[in-house]
Amino acid sequence: MSASRYTYLGPEGTFTEAALRTLPEAATRELTPMVSVPAALDAVRGGEAAAALVPIENSVEGGVTTTLDELASGEPLMIYREVLLPIAFALLVRPGTALTDVKTVTGHPVAQPQVRKWLAAQLPEAVWESAASNADGARLVQEGRYDGAFAGEFAAATYGLTPLVTDIHDAQNAATRFVLVGRPARPAAPTGADKTSVVLWLREDHPGALLELLQEYAVRGVSMMRIESRPTGEGIGRYCFSVDCEGHITDRRVSEVLMGLKRVCQEVRFLGSYPRADEVTASVRPEMTDVAFTEASDWLARCMDGRG
Amino acid sequence: MSASRYTYLGPEGTFTEAALRTLPEAATRELTPMVSVPAALDAVRGGEAAAALVPIENSVEGGVTTTLDELASGEPLMIYREVLLPIAFALLVRPGTALTDVKTVTGHPVAQPQVRKWLAAQLPEAVWESAASNADGARLVQEGRYDGAFAGEFAAATYGLTPLVTDIHDAQNAATRFVLVGRPARPAAPTGADKTSVVLWLREDHPGALLELLQEYAVRGVSMMRIESRPTGEGIGRYCFSVDCEGHITDRRVSEVLMGLKRVCQEVRFLGSYPRADEVTASVRPEMTDVAFTEASDWLARCMDGRG
Amino acid sequence: MSASRYTYLGPEGTFTEAALRTLPEAATRELTPMVSVPAALDAVRGGEAAAALVPIENSVEGGVTTTLDELASGEPLMIYREVLLPIAFALLVRPGTALTDVKTVTGHPVAQPQVRKWLAAQLPEAVWESAASNADGARLVQEGRYDGAFAGEFAAATYGLTPLVTDIHDAQNAATRFVLVGRPARPAAPTGADKTSVVLWLREDHPGALLELLQEYAVRGVSMMRIESRPTGEGIGRYCFSVDCEGHITDRRVSEVLMGLKRVCQEVRFLGSYPRADEVTASVRPEMTDVAFTEASDWLARCMDGRG
Amino acid sequence: MSASRYTYLGPEGTFTEAALRTLPEAATRELTPMVSVPAALDAVRGGEAAAALVPIENSVEGGVTTTLDELASGEPLMIYREVLLPIAFALLVRPGTALTDVKTVTGHPVAQPQVRKWLAAQLPEAVWESAASNADGARLVQEGRYDGAFAGEFAAATYGLTPLVTDIHDAQNAATRFVLVGRPARPAAPTGADKTSVVLWLREDHPGALLELLQEYAVRGVSMMRIESRPTGEGIGRYCFSVDCEGHITDRRVSEVLMGLKRVCQEVRFLGSYPRADEVTASVRPEMTDVAFTEASDWLARCMDGRG
Repeated sequence: MSASRYTYLGPEGTFTEAALRTLPEAATRELTPMVSVPAALDAVRGGEAAAALVPIENSVEGGVTTTLDELASGEPLMIYREVLLPIAFALLVRPGTALTDVKTVTGHPVAQPQVRKWLAAQLPEAVWESAASNADGARLVQEGRYDGAFAGEFAAATYGLTPLVTDIHDAQNAATRFVLVGRPARPAAPTGADKTSVVLWLREDHPGALLELLQEYAVRGVSMMRIESRPTGEGIGRYCFSVDCEGHITDRRVSEVLMGLKRVCQEVRFLGSYPRADEVTASVRPEMTDVAFTEASDWLARCMDGRG
Repeated sequence: MSASRYTYLGPEGTFTEAALRTLPEAATRELTPMVSVPAALDAVRGGEAAAALVPIENSVEGGVTTTLDELASGEPLMIYREVLLPIAFALLVRPGTALTDVKTVTGHPVAQPQVRKWLAAQLPEAVWESAASNADGARLVQEGRYDGAFAGEFAAATYGLTPLVTDIHDAQNAATRFVLVGRPARPAAPTGADKTSVVLWLREDHPGALLELLQEYAVRGVSMMRIESRPTGEGIGRYCFSVDCEGHITDRRVSEVLMGLKRVCQEVRFLGSYPRADEVTASVRPEMTDVAFTEASDWLARCMDGRG
Repeated sequence: MSASRYTYLGPEGTFTEAALRTLPEAATRELTPMVSVPAALDAVRGGEAAAALVPIENSVEGGVTTTLDELASGEPLMIYREVLLPIAFALLVRPGTALTDVKTVTGHPVAQPQVRKWLAAQLPEAVWESAASNADGARLVQEGRYDGAFAGEFAAATYGLTPLVTDIHDAQNAATRFVLVGRPARPAAPTGADKTSVVLWLREDHPGALLELLQEYAVRGVSMMRIESRPTGEGIGRYCFSVDCEGHITDRRVSEVLMGLKRVCQEVRFLGSYPRADEVTASVRPEMTDVAFTEASDWLARCMDGRG
Repeated sequence: MSASRYTYLGPEGTFTEAALRTLPEAATRELTPMVSVPAALDAVRGGEAAAALVPIENSVEGGVTTTLDELASGEPLMIYREVLLPIAFALLVRPGTALTDVKTVTGHPVAQPQVRKWLAAQLPEAVWESAASNADGARLVQEGRYDGAFAGEFAAATYGLTPLVTDIHDAQNAATRFVLVGRPARPAAPTGADKTSVVLWLREDHPGALLELLQEYAVRGVSMMRIESRPTGEGIGRYCFSVDCEGHITDRRVSEVLMGLKRVCQEVRFLGSYPRADEVTASVRPEMTDVAFTEASDWLARCMDGRG
């Protein structure tokens, strides 16, 4: 039954599955790998799954454009929560293989720039060939096609391999951010450390339109955390913007920003308010707290009533 | 009885009285001249008058600081409406005086810069001495102390004088703006051509504080019509700001501006929303109309409800 | 000879003279009191005086509009330096007068609000009448017309009076700011604690024009210290702005602001760069120092040269 | 010899080669296809090629991240010019194949979303499999592996195929933008319709840092044409920005923007000023022309000299 199923970007044994398994509720769900982000999300749209976990951003590769574009178009979806997974590869080998035996290595193309320096230092002679996924690379090692595969350490058991080296990552703090996406629903209650996501289409392409949009945030003291431009498909030079800001739709400074955006943009797609994976509480200026908003609207009511 | 009395900056026969008489309700009120702006306003504060008409701005001399400062301090007052009076002096003389007979002239010091060019052209030899008010100047002509007084044409009859020349004014479009001030009350209903006045004290004197304040207006598309800085009395370099903008407190763009100011300012004093004397309807950008605000808050409610 | 003469707003014995005497060079100049600010400045314009000292701002009364308007119009003038004088009145009486003998007091109208609380507390029965200047008030006490005059303590000797009470001032930190004004010249060398003054006319009265102007300052990290609107004389609603900012015209951040204003304003009148009387050194953000400007233009030159 | 060689993203027969052949100078160069964008650019960095043509943006797929990241890191490179190529696929088949015979199709993964609607309408039963490039897809059709390949019409001859249908593209105005990249050099002379590209790293991740950066453009009236965020590699939430604006580095408004960015950013990489492929002349506000800048600096010089 659909309410008990979560889809995710497969195949099994990839980082997406590992990220999904960090969610407590994953233990009680049927987890179904899908061949692509659109397939994972379409299962949600079609009601065959309650939610889908898909990557949205990688600190080395950048935004996952398929996910961004899927969220920006088609039947509306909503982000329920996010998961941050540090990027750390293991070099998986068949049992008994020593580092000096490794002449050929494989992995997903995205893995390559993240282990390049490590390879150059530790296995300068090794030849790299790309696989369709990290898990697929592990399978190819199992089959003897390559000597080693870069994949998550958790994938070793599935393919009868051994993690020869672990925690490989060229960049410090490298991480992938995943989002759990479902059908539109009431946003989860605010936790005090929340994030709000939207997609924005500028009303007209006048110079300064983007500036105007950022000022909607700035004037209410709401920090923007990420902004990503994506083509609208209408030709070179036409973009929409995927934006995350700190705060929750029920925070009054955020709801006023959202209404402001709604007024000045041609279109706004609300993608949800959800807990920040880093659990960092935004520092809200005293004049932008809910208390300050309430005091100001009480004062306004008094002014309208002749008691200002 | 107080409800039937209006005070004004006297004495009788000045432009303030003329401005007051342009108000239809003046016909049914007892009009009492007062010796100063504070005296006129204190009568309102004390309940001895329903309202007071005082000058607030002159297109030649600038803001009337006494009025600005009285509105910014003490027991709160509110602007009920404004009156614009074109500045046009008459040269009042005793009956029988010809222009060539005029050797000495008088008038309020404020009148002098407004008739200086006319004097230089028409009566280059005439000697000017200041009087306590334009009306007082007329009295001094009546008494024979001077040959001519610059005053409103309407003052002639009161002092048994003749307007020898009328419509004298050096500057084109010169006008004085007066405000009818009463105790705080519900603002008059919006007319579509309204103005809203406040006094603002910046929270701290950080660089850019004034810019921040102006952005509260700009981001909601509300045009500022006048800004005047006044000392707070706390020392050189400390100012508050008297600001008029277009629109009415019940216009949603204006009420959001007011609440924004209330949050970011140390103090806001609401001075009223009232019809513009020039009856110019503000051109409101489509995204800032009440309809746009309502649509945006409906949309927000749908988002919060999972139906965005 | 003119180079040796300084004019000032008279008469003798007023605070303006006291302010002028704080300047070291005053000792070697012929100091000539003039009847009005325009008269003092016209002597400079006409070459009869090298400079004139006039009040420009009072922390209780606000801007001295005659001075502001004179600097904004007519033959250009320039501010060479400023003087800050704390406001402190003495109650001058004829020798032998005791406080209990004082029934009538006088002084310049501007003095009244600055001693009102003191009067209410110490001489609640005393009757106030205004004099043409504080010095004139002292003369009237000398002649026996009033019992006491509020004036500068320094005026006592001139009129054979005794300072019965000194250091009277209702407001803490009350001060008057004076400017020494001369014909346009090379600005004095920067001291590190400087101020730059301009008068600005907006190109067109579009909403947001004032905001645009403030952004010229903000984007270069230059703090505005004072902004005062003045009517242009073209009718209600038309203003120019008198603005002081920190820094010197030769500071690159300030010169870029000035050029930016010159481009976006209808007119800019440069009124000078001169040492701040308070000697406070502006804290300049590291990215806005002359070093940062020089590095940026060196970098630009390298980019243009293909070595960026 | 290197000066006569241009590299491009291969293989032969792709759109990149077609774009390169639109450049007049391509006729006199040796054109060498490379296996990847980094390989094409490294040939330039290493001096083996004078320039490389690589795709940078696609109106359907968005920014080409490899190109963006290569330009932002490593040995500096510069954009010499840009080429816009409308996206239009041909369905290439072996001679004699009819549309009804086409059961399997191939092409580069990027081609798929751009022909999806056409496929659904015309060949709803056809099975898609991805090829390494559009040209490679054509080769696979030649070899009989698939019935049809989506590629540029120009690729037909190379592989002995026939364009069965031409001008296939789901989106109107779909286009790919390519850049010709070389080693840093003096930018080409301005044409009046130019573009300037930079990569910007914010000094610190303070809220509003991006807004500050956009204001550097806005305050000088320079329109931003594209902004793309890219991860810096330092972890989730750390971005740099790839920005194109209208105008040439030698336009004074643009050079002042560049210097402003240099001051407020942690790092700025100048990527070049070059003619716009669309040949649209930017409309420059009168106050932002070179004439206006020159007049303002002349005025500043006069002010410094006491002749303002």
